[in-house]
Amino acid sequence: MSEFAKGEVWLVGAGPGDAGLLTLHAVEALRTADVEIQDALKSAKVLEYAAGAELVFLGKRGGKPSPKQPEINARLVAEAKAGRRVVRLKGGDPFMFGRGTEEVLALVAAGVKFRVVPGITAGIGGLAYAGIPVTSRDVNSSVIFLTGHDHTGLSPEGIDWAAVGHAAGMIVLYMAMRHMGEISDKLMAGGLSGDTPVAVVMRASMPEMRILDTTLARAAKDIEASGIGAPAIISIGRGNLLREQMAWL
Amino acid sequence: MSEFAKGEVWLVGAGPGDAGLLTLHAVEALRTADVEIQDALKSAKVLEYAAGAELVFLGKRGGKPSPKQPEINARLVAEAKAGRRVVRLKGGDPFMFGRGTEEVLALVAAGVKFRVVPGITAGIGGLAYAGIPVTSRDVNSSVIFLTGHDHTGLSPEGIDWAAVGHAAGMIVLYMAMRHMGEISDKLMAGGLSGDTPVAVVMRASMPEMRILDTTLARAAKDIEASGIGAPAIISIGRGNLLREQMAWL
Repeated sequence: MSEFAKGEVWLVGAGPGDAGLLTLHAVEALRTADVEIQDALKSAKVLEYAAGAELVFLGKRGGKPSPKQPEINARLVAEAKAGRRVVRLKGGDPFMFGRGTEEVLALVAAGVKFRVVPGITAGIGGLAYAGIPVTSRDVNSSVIFLTGHDHTGLSPEGIDWAAVGHAAGMIVLYMAMRHMGEISDKLMAGGLSGDTPVAVVMRASMPEMRILDTTLARAAKDIEASGIGAPAIISIGRGNLLREQMAWL
Repeated sequence: MSEFAKGEVWLVGAGPGDAGLLTLHAVEALRTADVEIQDALKSAKVLEYAAGAELVFLGKRGGKPSPKQPEINARLVAEAKAGRRVVRLKGGDPFMFGRGTEEVLALVAAGVKFRVVPGITAGIGGLAYAGIPVTSRDVNSSVIFLTGHDHTGLSPEGIDWAAVGHAAGMIVLYMAMRHMGEISDKLMAGGLSGDTPVAVVMRASMPEMRILDTTLARAAKDIEASGIGAPAIISIGRGNLLREQMAWL
C-alpha cells in the first residue's frame, strides 16, 4: 500500500472491538494521521495508536441527534482540502454496512484521493470469538449478511425474506435488534422453522461480550427479557449449535 | 487475547495476501510460534513474521495429491502434544470456507487447547482492493457468500440457486472458477438477468491482482478466454458497476 499523503482520506476498518484485530495497515494509518474522524467511540486501546492525531467524534452525544451523512462527507472533504491526512475510522469493515461507499463517492466527486483499508467484520470475526463459525463444511456452504434497517429506520422492504431463508445455511444480521420480531415472523412465514437456533452476540470480541442462545420463534422476546442491547450481531442457523463445543475465550 | 502457550494450536487467518492486512494478533502468533503449518504458500512478507518457526507445507507439491484433512488434523494434534506452539495459517479467515471448523473439532476431540484468530476474507477485503464494495446503501443491503464446490469437488447440490438470486443484491463466490458455467446457468434459470455485472478478481490485494469485467451470461466463456486462474473471487451484482468510480490502487 502506498504512503499516506497529505490531503488524502483513508477509510479504515477498526474491526469488531478487540484492538488486536486491527490490521498492520490500520495501525500505520492511525499513527500517521493528522486527524481521526469517527461516529461511535472506539476502545481506548485502538485510539492509543492515534495519539498524534486530533480526534473528531461525530456521533450522538448529550442527546443531540447524529450528524447527517452529507455533513460527515463535507467534513471529510474539508479536512483533506486543508492538507491534512484524514483517517475515517469505522467499526468492522468500511464496506460491510458501514456507509463506506457513500463516503468514497463523495470524496471522488470532490477530487479527494482516498484509500480503503479493510477490517474484520463483526459478523465473521466477532462471531468467531463467540465460538460460532459462519461456515462449516458439514453444516453450511453459504452465509448471507443483512442489515436490519435501511435509511428509513425500518427493516428493509426490498428483502425477499423467504428467499433469504432458503438461500443460506447461516443468516447473519447487523443492526437488527429493534426489528427482530418482524424479521423472525417473515423468516418463519417463508418456511424457516421456529426451532432454528439463534445466537445474539453483544459487544463481540470485547471483554464485556455477552451471548444469548435462543430460537427463531423466541428470539424477540428473549432479547427483550435479556436486557442485551446494541451493538449486537444476530446469527441464525444450525452452525450456532457448534458453539458449545467451540467456545474458546 | 491470552498468551500463546506451549501445546496450543492457533488457527490464524492470514487475509487475502497483502501482508499489511495481517492483524496484530496474527503477527504476534506468527512471531511466537514454534511451528507454522500451511496448505497454500503465503507471501514472503507474511512468512517473515514466522522467521523463528519451523515451516511445514502440507499443500500439493510435485504432482503429489494434497494430504487429506484427517492427516492434517492428526499433524496439528501431534505437534501440540509434543509441546509446541502451533500456528495453523489459513488464507483469508479460518471460518470462511477455510475448513477451520473441522480442525477445531478435531483439536477439541483430542483435548488440545486452541484459539481462532479471525482474518480479512478475500470476498470482502480483497474485493475492496478491486474497488468493489460488497454492500452499498443505495444498491444492496445484503450479500451472500458461497463456495463453488463441496467435498465431492462438484458445485454444491444442496444450494437453492433461485433463492440465492432473489435473496441478496450481491453474490460472492469462492473457489467457483471451474463451475462458473453451471452456476451462471442455474442463477439465470432462477430469474437473474444474463446482463448482471460480474467481476472476477484474481490474486486480490496482491501486486499481480487481475480483474475481469463480464456478465453472468458471458462469465464462463470470458474466464476461459482470459487465462485468469484460481485463486479468484467472483462477485455478481450491480455493486460491481461502482468499480470504475472507486478503483483506488
